[in-house]
Amino acid sequence: MQELKIIPLGGLNEIGLNCTVFEYGNQAIIVDAGLMFPEENMLGVDIVIPDFSYILENKDKFKGIVVTHAHEDHVGAIPYLLKDVNLPVYATRLTLGLLRKKIEEFKLPNVEYHEITAKRVFSIGPFTIEPVSVTHSVVDCVALAIKTPVGVIIHTGDFKIDYTPVDGKPFDMASFCRYGQEGVLLLLSDSTNATVPGFTPSERVLEGVFQRIFSEAKGRILAVTFASNVHRVQQIVNTAREFRRNVCLTGKSVVQNVLIAKELGYFKASEEIMVKEEDIDIYPDDRLVIVTTGSQGEPLSGLSRIALGEHKKINVKPTDTIVISASAIPGNQRAINRIVNMLMRRGAEVLYEENSDVHVSGHASQEELKFILMTCKPRYFVPIHGDYIRRFTHARIAREMGIPPSSIFLLDNGDILHLSKEKIYASGSVTAGRMFVDGREVGEIGDVVLRDRMRLSSDGICTVFVVMDKTTGDLISGPDVIMKGVTYESMSQQLMDETGSMVRNLIVNQTGVDMRTNQFELKKKIRRAVSRFLYKKLMRNPIVLPVVMEV
Amino acid sequence: MQELKIIPLGGLNEIGLNCTVFEYGNQAIIVDAGLMFPEENMLGVDIVIPDFSYILENKDKFKGIVVTHAHEDHVGAIPYLLKDVNLPVYATRLTLGLLRKKIEEFKLPNVEYHEITAKRVFSIGPFTIEPVSVTHSVVDCVALAIKTPVGVIIHTGDFKIDYTPVDGKPFDMASFCRYGQEGVLLLLSDSTNATVPGFTPSERVLEGVFQRIFSEAKGRILAVTFASNVHRVQQIVNTAREFRRNVCLTGKSVVQNVLIAKELGYFKASEEIMVKEEDIDIYPDDRLVIVTTGSQGEPLSGLSRIALGEHKKINVKPTDTIVISASAIPGNQRAINRIVNMLMRRGAEVLYEENSDVHVSGHASQEELKFILMTCKPRYFVPIHGDYIRRFTHARIAREMGIPPSSIFLLDNGDILHLSKEKIYASGSVTAGRMFVDGREVGEIGDVVLRDRMRLSSDGICTVFVVMDKTTGDLISGPDVIMKGVTYESMSQQLMDETGSMVRNLIVNQTGVDMRTNQFELKKKIRRAVSRFLYKKLMRNPIVLPVVMEV
Repeated sequence: MQELKIIPLGGLNEIGLNCTVFEYGNQAIIVDAGLMFPEENMLGVDIVIPDFSYILENKDKFKGIVVTHAHEDHVGAIPYLLKDVNLPVYATRLTLGLLRKKIEEFKLPNVEYHEITAKRVFSIGPFTIEPVSVTHSVVDCVALAIKTPVGVIIHTGDFKIDYTPVDGKPFDMASFCRYGQEGVLLLLSDSTNATVPGFTPSERVLEGVFQRIFSEAKGRILAVTFASNVHRVQQIVNTAREFRRNVCLTGKSVVQNVLIAKELGYFKASEEIMVKEEDIDIYPDDRLVIVTTGSQGEPLSGLSRIALGEHKKINVKPTDTIVISASAIPGNQRAINRIVNMLMRRGAEVLYEENSDVHVSGHASQEELKFILMTCKPRYFVPIHGDYIRRFTHARIAREMGIPPSSIFLLDNGDILHLSKEKIYASGSVTAGRMFVDGREVGEIGDVVLRDRMRLSSDGICTVFVVMDKTTGDLISGPDVIMKGVTYESMSQQLMDETGSMVRNLIVNQTGVDMRTNQFELKKKIRRAVSRFLYKKLMRNPIVLPVVMEV
Repeated sequence: MQELKIIPLGGLNEIGLNCTVFEYGNQAIIVDAGLMFPEENMLGVDIVIPDFSYILENKDKFKGIVVTHAHEDHVGAIPYLLKDVNLPVYATRLTLGLLRKKIEEFKLPNVEYHEITAKRVFSIGPFTIEPVSVTHSVVDCVALAIKTPVGVIIHTGDFKIDYTPVDGKPFDMASFCRYGQEGVLLLLSDSTNATVPGFTPSERVLEGVFQRIFSEAKGRILAVTFASNVHRVQQIVNTAREFRRNVCLTGKSVVQNVLIAKELGYFKASEEIMVKEEDIDIYPDDRLVIVTTGSQGEPLSGLSRIALGEHKKINVKPTDTIVISASAIPGNQRAINRIVNMLMRRGAEVLYEENSDVHVSGHASQEELKFILMTCKPRYFVPIHGDYIRRFTHARIAREMGIPPSSIFLLDNGDILHLSKEKIYASGSVTAGRMFVDGREVGEIGDVVLRDRMRLSSDGICTVFVVMDKTTGDLISGPDVIMKGVTYESMSQQLMDETGSMVRNLIVNQTGVDMRTNQFELKKKIRRAVSRFLYKKLMRNPIVLPVVMEV
């Protein structure tokens, strides 16, 4: 009897990068391939994606990628993966629509797309998969019930249990119960909110919140949300209609996503209430809602440009009501705080998560996690989607629900979980980690470039340039000293002059001809002397870059 | 009749940098001079202090600095100020003890220290000042009632209303009431928690929390708090005694602060329960508490080194209980999250603000702010200590309490508020802003060095060196291309080679003798060509630094 192997390639050490491999014999599938936004020490990095080495080294095994929903932390790395290995993509209608657009932007024309639908079973190799409807902060989300030769595995994707979802498509409790009764071998479940007690409120509660805001607003309303939250935009449009306001969508990603959602039947708005950005001045302030992005304080987003007064069309007015309907991703609080301060200084009323109830989470809280554990009654349990804190807390909940500690696995990215009908064990690992996308390139994490950038960013760089006579060892030209990022401009010239004199003195008076004609040794000597000199002066360690040229 | 001028030099656009000038005729005092920790875009900056230009340009006016309490955001910039202008320092006993140590580290020997005491009135020039006891997260805090020729001004400092403070010294409500009855012209009040509804809990509630933690802990307890929270350390020591555990203080700042507090009678612990760091292995795990710093995830702190396994004496054990008794300063959440993940991976039980009630705020919530407004009944009101969001919210509370909007001033740092018995108005401003302490230097914010560091940190630097014959314009040596922080190492050599060839071709084939003998023009040409070349290759804009030497 062959084993089933489950290999998480991302999502177990972070929020983001979600990616899991299911492998049986020489056939394998991937569930999701998400990106992560860079942390503050990943200087100059645009986005982070999982290390796909294992997939690339075993291309022939892989038969397809199945996607649970359209959020970046689940689909954002797929185009990078497909660049190197062409795999069929399986996703629900809206997810596929949004994802196809991204893939097309990467100019990958030959990708095979399969639309999947809740309750409609499909097969890839030895895997028979039933998508199960779940609710989340984006529509058309599914969990996956994967029938394998060794047993049934449930992968929840991202979910919360929303009794009153905006699109009316309920969380499919019956299917979870049915699988639980038939027997679930392994549950992989979303840990994002595992530290949050209680139940997550329904998306529907925001209807009342928006109604209150719309009824109180005297001037324009500016609503900010994630571009992928198409149904949040739908709620805003619905409320606008009710309050007889027109709606302007601005920002490429919002406009594009809403367009796709509309084409696929996931977004409804009568043409007459939609307004183009260039026409907003035609409408009275109290008849207008503007929807844009930038809820995380991103520097180039619509909201940032508006706050800075740099938006080409939209200026904040003291009568504006600005609603930031999103929660801060950890680490972004300071940027958001800065934007809110700027907007309030311009006199606007700003409603955001710290002073208002304008957002609800899309992830299951503790009581919902218990529901899934109770209905699925899995023999084994692997918490996924979250750092160690969250997965550990989820594991503790599972223990409280009666799953023995020996049946719970806190895996690391790259770990291999082996399953057969008789036994389960974690053993061995494959290459896994984070790859950095930096401009046009994709590179590895341990790379020296980040260390250089870190040091450049805190201490700067000092270059010292000299031209030596290659036979006599005479100093022909230089030293030329240039510093960038080392010290305040007012101090800089003097410091460069002093450093130059010090190096000149070093070469002329403290170095023999042997060294003066040995480029390598002379460089080393200059580097050391300059480092020591600058540390004494500044208590700083800039990168010192000596260049010795011989003519 | 002369006017009183009130000039905030910091603390109105940030949490930190608190500093206010009170000036009457040609005499002035300063209340507090705090620092701020750098924000994430202040690359390489160690700390931030207020711009003291106004004080330095008017040295003769200034007669002293009065300090409300010992926190860094109120005292941290004082040594930098005293370096340039010698002023008498007025502070309560413990505050003075802690501050004196800092000032001495700056080798400023001739500072005049005045110990002040609650209820004991003292005068500086035209100002007669009564310190009023308030409660906060550090002991020996005072508000200031400043009698001026135009009326009484109350400056609250930092406070919350703690009915059961740890040191038993109560919040002096009677004095606030008395001043309110006699008439307060102006109230300056702490806005830090103005967005938080309700009342802030007493420091005393942590006693119960610590008792529960101590009774449940099986192994060692590692408690982490701010070094200035001497009474939090006292609470830990008290609980340790109750549970028959010994206490080890580790980390220079904790040890030093506790020593000073002890000498001054603000800290009590019998010698026999205190343990030196080198002796901790002697004691059984369940008889030991270790107290250290690093609650903000600071890279070099005790806790960080412990989490990384780099602490010379303390290794995390799976039986350890780690209590981080502090709240995250906005922006530090990610660093703290990283540390907690590392500690939990090592098996320790970690209790911190996200999963436990191990910290209470030191600042007044909305109901307490109302108490102060109600008792003081000020004619005019200036919210201080906080960014615009918090001060605006505080102003709204004051309006709800019946202070007319025209009597409330949302000032900016540097604004001058003029007061006489007849009128009040804000008009004009003095230089104010942020100065950066960077290694040994103090510099200004707008400076080019930060822009350079920002660009270096995201895109790196490319240097191009050539040696030209100054008469013929021949390329004698080079181009030598060096890049730092531009691209991944694996790509780097090839890219440098390509850039070199491109520049060589540019000089040899596309440049006339005129330009080749004109250093300035040649540099400009190389810079442009290399920038364009690298942008095309990488979609990056590194700093390009051409050096042309003529021999």
